Amino acid sequence: MSEKLLLHEHAVSGNCYKVRLTAAHAGVPIERREYDIMKGETRTPEFLAKVSADGRIPVLQAGNRFIAESNAICFYVAEGSGLIPADRAERADMLHWMFWEQYHHEPNIATLRFWMNWVGLDRLTDFQRSQMPVKRKLGNEALQRMDRHLADRKWFVGDAMSLADLCLFAYTHVADEADFDLALYPNVVEWMERIMTQPGHVSMDA
Amino acid sequence: MSEKLLLHEHAVSGNCYKVRLTAAHAGVPIERREYDIMKGETRTPEFLAKVSADGRIPVLQAGNRFIAESNAICFYVAEGSGLIPADRAERADMLHWMFWEQYHHEPNIATLRFWMNWVGLDRLTDFQRSQMPVKRKLGNEALQRMDRHLADRKWFVGDAMSLADLCLFAYTHVADEADFDLALYPNVVEWMERIMTQPGHVSMDA
Repeated sequence: MSEKLLLHEHAVSGNCYKVRLTAAHAGVPIERREYDIMKGETRTPEFLAKVSADGRIPVLQAGNRFIAESNAICFYVAEGSGLIPADRAERADMLHWMFWEQYHHEPNIATLRFWMNWVGLDRLTDFQRSQMPVKRKLGNEALQRMDRHLADRKWFVGDAMSLADLCLFAYTHVADEADFDLALYPNVVEWMERIMTQPGHVSMDA
Repeated sequence: MSEKLLLHEHAVSGNCYKVRLTAAHAGVPIERREYDIMKGETRTPEFLAKVSADGRIPVLQAGNRFIAESNAICFYVAEGSGLIPADRAERADMLHWMFWEQYHHEPNIATLRFWMNWVGLDRLTDFQRSQMPVKRKLGNEALQRMDRHLADRKWFVGDAMSLADLCLFAYTHVADEADFDLALYPNVVEWMERIMTQPGHVSMDA
């Protein structure tokens, strides 16, 4: 890519981290601009007018284009790299796991992590509090599903690391911050170690 | 594509319909096999062993490969057709709306439709019942977001119909079955009419 890429982000968000991790493995340089969502920095008139009318991050600015939704951004950054399988069915299977992540994983594990560590348990609404047990249950079911899938394979799709792995890794590797016991999922733990020891890996706090 | 495509589906599911609509516009023939999810036909030992260990539909069987998650299946079917924009940023923007659909639209509008018309209000659990108001609110917010986006454009991405339109259309055009008042969203209504009058359009009951 020739144009400059600027990631509008909040670095501790898993959805933002997955973009940085993808960029690192794709060998694509990105600049970063940090916003503190807890201070409303993504809801300022300037942000809403120039970056995202939805007031959400991450947003990738590519020249004069603005791309939203973390997994769509990862796809954009990774196109042309080995992170997207060359085989058509494997490419679809990679997207399957990325859609799965946003439907079954992120709304449970990432939301509990956010509620417990940023909002704070004592500031949750009654409705949010009532949702915690079901998110706990569904989050564990998602981790079980991943563990079963990894029982006889090293990577989520085919025989190489793909976007599916990176997008799933982002919130899985911090699931303990939402009190999920990752030791219950040994295949997931091995897979995380595999990712963390890949050449070019970057950590969330890098 | 040379191999035979077989869609394992429940025809009234919007997630299955979007695959048929995509195939129609991509000019890709697919065979269909119907399962009644209310009779547990996707939870039989045979289905779980051969089609999907998750017991969910749609699943696209392409030769000896099985592809899950509706939007990933649509991507597979549409590759090489005009339904996927040739421009890299537009392609990412298409994926943005497809991820958005599974995160903000389907869990609210499709779930309410399913609960109200298939499960039945009197058979919902207390927890499901407690979730209805927030799904109503979030579903209306999703329709508002679509209406705003369509205020000055005919299609979700660029200047042609793409997978983003088809994937969003599937559950939007039956949102009235979940008591959403689509008349409140005139740009959405015009966009739906645009899709329904496209050459090659197929209806949900076709």
